[in-house]
Amino acid sequence: MRRERARDLLARVADGSLAVDGALDALAAEPTESLGFATIDHHRALRQGFPEVIYGAGKTPEQIVAIAERIAAHGDGVLVTRVNEAAAAVLVRTFPGAEYNATARTVQVRSSTPPALARASLLVVTAGTSDLPVAEEAAVTAGALGCRLERLADVGVAGIHRLLARREMLDAAGVIIVVAGMDGALASVVGGLARVPVIAVPTSVGYGASFGGIAPLLTMLNSCAAGVTVVNIDNGFGAAVAAARILHA
Amino acid sequence: MRRERARDLLARVADGSLAVDGALDALAAEPTESLGFATIDHHRALRQGFPEVIYGAGKTPEQIVAIAERIAAHGDGVLVTRVNEAAAAVLVRTFPGAEYNATARTVQVRSSTPPALARASLLVVTAGTSDLPVAEEAAVTAGALGCRLERLADVGVAGIHRLLARREMLDAAGVIIVVAGMDGALASVVGGLARVPVIAVPTSVGYGASFGGIAPLLTMLNSCAAGVTVVNIDNGFGAAVAAARILHA
Amino acid sequence: MRRERARDLLARVADGSLAVDGALDALAAEPTESLGFATIDHHRALRQGFPEVIYGAGKTPEQIVAIAERIAAHGDGVLVTRVNEAAAAVLVRTFPGAEYNATARTVQVRSSTPPALARASLLVVTAGTSDLPVAEEAAVTAGALGCRLERLADVGVAGIHRLLARREMLDAAGVIIVVAGMDGALASVVGGLARVPVIAVPTSVGYGASFGGIAPLLTMLNSCAAGVTVVNIDNGFGAAVAAARILHA
Amino acid sequence: MRRERARDLLARVADGSLAVDGALDALAAEPTESLGFATIDHHRALRQGFPEVIYGAGKTPEQIVAIAERIAAHGDGVLVTRVNEAAAAVLVRTFPGAEYNATARTVQVRSSTPPALARASLLVVTAGTSDLPVAEEAAVTAGALGCRLERLADVGVAGIHRLLARREMLDAAGVIIVVAGMDGALASVVGGLARVPVIAVPTSVGYGASFGGIAPLLTMLNSCAAGVTVVNIDNGFGAAVAAARILHA
Amino acid sequence: MRRERARDLLARVADGSLAVDGALDALAAEPTESLGFATIDHHRALRQGFPEVIYGAGKTPEQIVAIAERIAAHGDGVLVTRVNEAAAAVLVRTFPGAEYNATARTVQVRSSTPPALARASLLVVTAGTSDLPVAEEAAVTAGALGCRLERLADVGVAGIHRLLARREMLDAAGVIIVVAGMDGALASVVGGLARVPVIAVPTSVGYGASFGGIAPLLTMLNSCAAGVTVVNIDNGFGAAVAAARILHA
Amino acid sequence: MRRERARDLLARVADGSLAVDGALDALAAEPTESLGFATIDHHRALRQGFPEVIYGAGKTPEQIVAIAERIAAHGDGVLVTRVNEAAAAVLVRTFPGAEYNATARTVQVRSSTPPALARASLLVVTAGTSDLPVAEEAAVTAGALGCRLERLADVGVAGIHRLLARREMLDAAGVIIVVAGMDGALASVVGGLARVPVIAVPTSVGYGASFGGIAPLLTMLNSCAAGVTVVNIDNGFGAAVAAARILHA
Amino acid sequence: MRRERARDLLARVADGSLAVDGALDALAAEPTESLGFATIDHHRALRQGFPEVIYGAGKTPEQIVAIAERIAAHGDGVLVTRVNEAAAAVLVRTFPGAEYNATARTVQVRSSTPPALARASLLVVTAGTSDLPVAEEAAVTAGALGCRLERLADVGVAGIHRLLARREMLDAAGVIIVVAGMDGALASVVGGLARVPVIAVPTSVGYGASFGGIAPLLTMLNSCAAGVTVVNIDNGFGAAVAAARILHA
Amino acid sequence: MRRERARDLLARVADGSLAVDGALDALAAEPTESLGFATIDHHRALRQGFPEVIYGAGKTPEQIVAIAERIAAHGDGVLVTRVNEAAAAVLVRTFPGAEYNATARTVQVRSSTPPALARASLLVVTAGTSDLPVAEEAAVTAGALGCRLERLADVGVAGIHRLLARREMLDAAGVIIVVAGMDGALASVVGGLARVPVIAVPTSVGYGASFGGIAPLLTMLNSCAAGVTVVNIDNGFGAAVAAARILHA
Repeated sequence: MRRERARDLLARVADGSLAVDGALDALAAEPTESLGFATIDHHRALRQGFPEVIYGAGKTPEQIVAIAERIAAHGDGVLVTRVNEAAAAVLVRTFPGAEYNATARTVQVRSSTPPALARASLLVVTAGTSDLPVAEEAAVTAGALGCRLERLADVGVAGIHRLLARREMLDAAGVIIVVAGMDGALASVVGGLARVPVIAVPTSVGYGASFGGIAPLLTMLNSCAAGVTVVNIDNGFGAAVAAARILHA
Repeated sequence: MRRERARDLLARVADGSLAVDGALDALAAEPTESLGFATIDHHRALRQGFPEVIYGAGKTPEQIVAIAERIAAHGDGVLVTRVNEAAAAVLVRTFPGAEYNATARTVQVRSSTPPALARASLLVVTAGTSDLPVAEEAAVTAGALGCRLERLADVGVAGIHRLLARREMLDAAGVIIVVAGMDGALASVVGGLARVPVIAVPTSVGYGASFGGIAPLLTMLNSCAAGVTVVNIDNGFGAAVAAARILHA
Repeated sequence: MRRERARDLLARVADGSLAVDGALDALAAEPTESLGFATIDHHRALRQGFPEVIYGAGKTPEQIVAIAERIAAHGDGVLVTRVNEAAAAVLVRTFPGAEYNATARTVQVRSSTPPALARASLLVVTAGTSDLPVAEEAAVTAGALGCRLERLADVGVAGIHRLLARREMLDAAGVIIVVAGMDGALASVVGGLARVPVIAVPTSVGYGASFGGIAPLLTMLNSCAAGVTVVNIDNGFGAAVAAARILHA
Repeated sequence: MRRERARDLLARVADGSLAVDGALDALAAEPTESLGFATIDHHRALRQGFPEVIYGAGKTPEQIVAIAERIAAHGDGVLVTRVNEAAAAVLVRTFPGAEYNATARTVQVRSSTPPALARASLLVVTAGTSDLPVAEEAAVTAGALGCRLERLADVGVAGIHRLLARREMLDAAGVIIVVAGMDGALASVVGGLARVPVIAVPTSVGYGASFGGIAPLLTMLNSCAAGVTVVNIDNGFGAAVAAARILHA
Repeated sequence: MRRERARDLLARVADGSLAVDGALDALAAEPTESLGFATIDHHRALRQGFPEVIYGAGKTPEQIVAIAERIAAHGDGVLVTRVNEAAAAVLVRTFPGAEYNATARTVQVRSSTPPALARASLLVVTAGTSDLPVAEEAAVTAGALGCRLERLADVGVAGIHRLLARREMLDAAGVIIVVAGMDGALASVVGGLARVPVIAVPTSVGYGASFGGIAPLLTMLNSCAAGVTVVNIDNGFGAAVAAARILHA
Repeated sequence: MRRERARDLLARVADGSLAVDGALDALAAEPTESLGFATIDHHRALRQGFPEVIYGAGKTPEQIVAIAERIAAHGDGVLVTRVNEAAAAVLVRTFPGAEYNATARTVQVRSSTPPALARASLLVVTAGTSDLPVAEEAAVTAGALGCRLERLADVGVAGIHRLLARREMLDAAGVIIVVAGMDGALASVVGGLARVPVIAVPTSVGYGASFGGIAPLLTMLNSCAAGVTVVNIDNGFGAAVAAARILHA
Repeated sequence: MRRERARDLLARVADGSLAVDGALDALAAEPTESLGFATIDHHRALRQGFPEVIYGAGKTPEQIVAIAERIAAHGDGVLVTRVNEAAAAVLVRTFPGAEYNATARTVQVRSSTPPALARASLLVVTAGTSDLPVAEEAAVTAGALGCRLERLADVGVAGIHRLLARREMLDAAGVIIVVAGMDGALASVVGGLARVPVIAVPTSVGYGASFGGIAPLLTMLNSCAAGVTVVNIDNGFGAAVAAARILHA
Repeated sequence: MRRERARDLLARVADGSLAVDGALDALAAEPTESLGFATIDHHRALRQGFPEVIYGAGKTPEQIVAIAERIAAHGDGVLVTRVNEAAAAVLVRTFPGAEYNATARTVQVRSSTPPALARASLLVVTAGTSDLPVAEEAAVTAGALGCRLERLADVGVAGIHRLLARREMLDAAGVIIVVAGMDGALASVVGGLARVPVIAVPTSVGYGASFGGIAPLLTMLNSCAAGVTVVNIDNGFGAAVAAARILHA
């Protein structure tokens, strides 16, 4: 149960539009629910502001659907990441209104209660076109968490003037996510120009000595611009959650 | 020149307590200054809210003092990190009022204009006593950047009830920095309990397969609790700057 | 020849239900048998309590069947791990009663003499649903070795209360196997809560900086909870054998 | 408070030799105690059978003494590992009867209540003479935890007959700890010969491509003998705790 | 041109069965021959006792055939390693009498002049059945280089008595190649038992922390048995060439 | 806009063959152009002498075509590297005269204005036939940048006389690119023989401990012949650009 | 013998100022000279334009002096790199006019014949003050090889305007060496701004996940700016030799 | 007991110069002897042709002396490797005639019975002067094992003609040991020129990306010259034992 829904429920009790017994039923659900292969954390939304997101990799379509049904039954929206095409097809068939984003590899079922809007906007910057799937995972996740989004694509440091020409976008953002593979140098440059928190996402874009994203990961961890923090390689989802935590504070 | 000082300067011009010419002199300083071996970024404070911090490792005491003198001359406070005992002694002799923190390996010269206070407090959590030097570097840095501090020490997951017993501290913080070596597991547990941004700092505490901090670094990057971001091994300084960016937003 | 079968044989000789010559024939088999491409260790069951288990990866179906036939001919049960679908199909056709577990990737032919039951139960805990194949390999193996099993699934530290709510299961077990990928932090938390031996199995579940299971492997090797021992990545089989050695002591 | 002491306390109340108020005082101590830089887990002994052991590396002598005094005040014995000579000297001066083992790098203050004796003996096997410091850390720890000890030194596989000649020692043990650096091959050979649990400890003994113990660590994790579990490089302490958990079950 | 063929040519000139002009033609060929994409080293056989062997990986079938035709035209036998099925089919169609060994992934066209026989036999020992492809590559190569072969399969250290039972084979060999994956421990044990040169070949057999053969590679490089030398992972070919160099000395 | 075209434009204005307004239109194009998923750097040719080259990996055929159309519209030639067969087919259909090189994995659309010719020739040396795709990527790129090319293939150090026999080619070149996998030793030998700049390209050719090109990469970085510089594994493109920068100086 | 000296010698013979016999003596020296522990390559200067440079690390002062004396005896200048203080003191005592640069860790004895001057200047850019020792090694070496030098210090990307403000220096250089530790991002930015060859030198400046220079090394190898080539970590010497090869072409 | 001494003993019994009882006493010694901290393998000399060599690293001087005394008491010579100065001093005091080689870090006590001489000579080739300590360890060991030695120093591939000029030394050797750090390329070049077995020893000479010898280790394992085998980094001892096994066959 998301905090917005809980607040709404209590407000409806307060103004008499919902009977106490009905509210009790909604709240009576166990905080965790066991499916044998999964233990769903229904109170995560209350505790942390968003429901458990389903990590699709390594799960069968049947397992994903079963978990998603239990989450949806609590009235929260559902977000599945790292979902392959086969599982996405099953989800779209099962949940009316489910939206499949093939680039981001996500399936989203929106909640009827829209999330509270964050106080400032999130800017997602990418170094190259090949980084877009990770950026898109971040964008879908951030949207599901109530963040307003700006995008600035393909402004890697090989042509630094592309970034400098859009500096006003860096100044306007509340948080900046920088998505970059290969040398990952964009994060340091953005970190040196911006005042706001910068979250760096290394991607596995590249070849040879990029070692599946180790190169930009190390670049970002060693950023000479202080205040840059880093998430796992290709982890657009995690970056968006961190950004949302900041923007909702 | 820190933003606070610039604002103060302009306010004094506005109320007549400072002549226009005096203000002009203060602002006329070049944004960068070259010492041959260093190019000081005097506008960093205006751009990012804090002056350039001097990374002491690999610099001679003479180089550190020369840079510190140029920064101090602009009226901003000075912070030197990773300073060894020899360089610290020289700094303390050179700058009256300089404070040497041997655990944090920092020397700080406070500015006459105190930094603006952040909107919420920062909680620094450590897994073990051996992680304190890194936590202390974070604490000194955060203090210099205007953050109020809480500390929770030695609550690693080998005795998880030590953390659970102080859960109210997690709930009260605006940002949490988790400092942990060895298995680094504390960051995930805190990330799962807290609502606010969690910045994880892996430390080089440990031996054998901790590989100088790689083990907790990887643990933290792979945190199953979403929203945890990570900085370099032993980088208490960077974590504090990131926290300050969040808390000053 | 398993110890149980040897003991049974001797008992039947003692009570006259088996002639000495029949028993001699059964015992006369060579301790090792060469198939050219394999040297079967028929005395492993007598020496270590369980017959040689066939590691299916890298072997042709024909090789697996040939080895399995020689082991089965000694009256011991047969267990094949890491078996792909093609080989499993051949095995199920060849051995009546063979059980294929697609999740665990095992084929088991039960012995007519059931194994001795262990003195306490084994608890297999998993951090996430994607860790189940490894947990299932452990479960099938442990069952074949006479262990009673309990399971606790999907209780990773991102929602630590899921584990704390089932703490009585940790207290009741004789040995605990913790199966976790990503940050692998669950092993340390369980190790800090339990009194009994804890065997940690890192899994290759994850992406990016999990490096195919290196991240949880290092986490577990550096566990700040003393008394946690570790097996190879995805090695559910090895963890179960170690657990059985402990439980049969 | 160790379980033995708690049981003793209750027995003395039961037989009238201790007044209820005296017992209450002993039990009234907080389960955790904060020293600012440390949070002592006084209930670890009750929960897991042995008090918190102090990891000496990275702590000042003053910190070690302060923690040790608090643990000793609860009547439990004290064990400090990875202690350097300077800290050891201070400890020996502070605690009458403290025993410093320079090879093992441990300081031990025995409890007045001896620990319960384990049901079977522990055999510590080393591959070479240079592995002795790690083996000795295991031996001291195991002794402190109530284990009876046997030792078999310098029987590495370069001369396999040295091990085969003492095979009866493998058969007599309840648990075997194998300590080996360089190729670490001894663990697999012992694992193939023994029936009981085998805990392998890789050491940093070696040079070049042993990479500070990575080589034997990988050897042991990939042991072709099932049932071998592994602890961190040079972690004699952890191996002993795991062995004690098994032997006390 | 192999040394045997050169010697035969000269002998036939000496006894008058070959005219000087015919011999001159045979010797007149250039030592290297350029095909644009390849520069064939025709004198390698004279210099080192065997013709250039074609490494099939990364070459098109057309390239392999073109190179093989030039080598065959010089009357030397042809050996292609790491050949895939498609290229093997083309080679078998092109060269009458070509032998394809699917396990070893080799195609061999024997020379009409058999190679000189080595002074002692080569023993190829494997730890497990899954190591056979690498062992077979070694066997085919060694055969092509005139070595007599013995094989001892599946005698890994998990059941050390399988090896000890065949110790006379170790004593009879002139050189021993040990092929092992996983823990690679067999090489050290054989190195400690044998008097003759031992060449260790790590294989990529295994999973998880075997890291594609790094684990046995490191084990073998750190062998506590002196006198063991090592070749690249899965390099049965290289081990056989080294063995042949020794046996032909 | 390439420098040659800009110079040509200005010359035509100077001699009256192009009206000022026409020239203005050509120059008026924005230096960068945003396609949403890409920000094209149209001034790169003016700034660095060649237009932006499209890195094909990780882009959809649609994205590649859209970018290529914008670059082609500026009258510059187009070069796409790391292009797969599907995308190549679309490009060849879209751009008349486009040349697909399957070995080099490139598609090139030549500019109507040929690039200025470099002052000396580039020699591309390969160690083995399997290194040709990388060498070919370098050759196509260098050709597009106006370099004259010489090739020397399959002269690895296993037969060093193949290289020594062609030493005059090393002496005649203005820059040498050495492409080698496996041991990568050729770069050091060439670096020791040549006077001119040597650019080393490690390739992923090899297996086992070549680790996808790490082995030759490290060899080349540690070259005992001074003056050898290195690019990323398999980066024929980058080596060619660096060579062209040198040859056009 | 450097090429300049050989040319001078021949010119003096041509104009009669040197007798043929005197010239013969000078040329008669063996191209290599053996000292037992060293084989000096006296023709390297003729072949490659500069004499053998002595790598001081791992050599005793006696060995360095002995080699230096043999090189000096040929009239070429002497350069020793990676020299420690003790060896430097001995060298300065032995060779009158020897110059010790403690920052660069070099000792240089200039030749009486100054080296030919390069056609354009070399710009050495450093990211931070701690990178100066490596930059200085490059500067001393380049000077010894006849390069004119410009320096731009401490312009790392944390304050990118420091670099942009000096862009005319990038435009004026013939070759640029970029020296950077930590994130190494400066190389990509310079590579994107400059037209001329850029040689990147990663340094071991940094801590934690910089892994002694691996982080900037990988950054530079993966530079998204084409045309950047890389040398070994801290290899200022090699970068300078490569630059000199380019500038003397 | 070395084979030579055993043969001598039996010969003296055969010719009556030694009484049967005296011979019995000599032979009656146990094959292994336990010192508590060491288990000496006295039959290693009989089994493998040379007595147990003492690896000095990680042993106290007292332990080394105690082991050496037991080996010496059996009449075999003693060899200690990796011995530091302190231990060497004690050994030289204890054993009259002991020879300390500071470069090789060895102490040798020669046996009264000289070892049998090998059938051909061993050539030790080094790439640079800094590789001498490892080469010297190989030389001392080989001498102790009865090998005749030739040396060729400082002929690395940066000046390949230094090696080519001494090619007759390669042709004359029975086995070649190549000792090289940095790029390790010399092993491949020698492997391509020689007919005899080549044993490559990577050294830790170098810096930066040589990673303490990993670079030359990988170069050598990936040698494109077949027939090169490799030992551990800096393992001159192991290379010499392998060479002696070959030369004594």
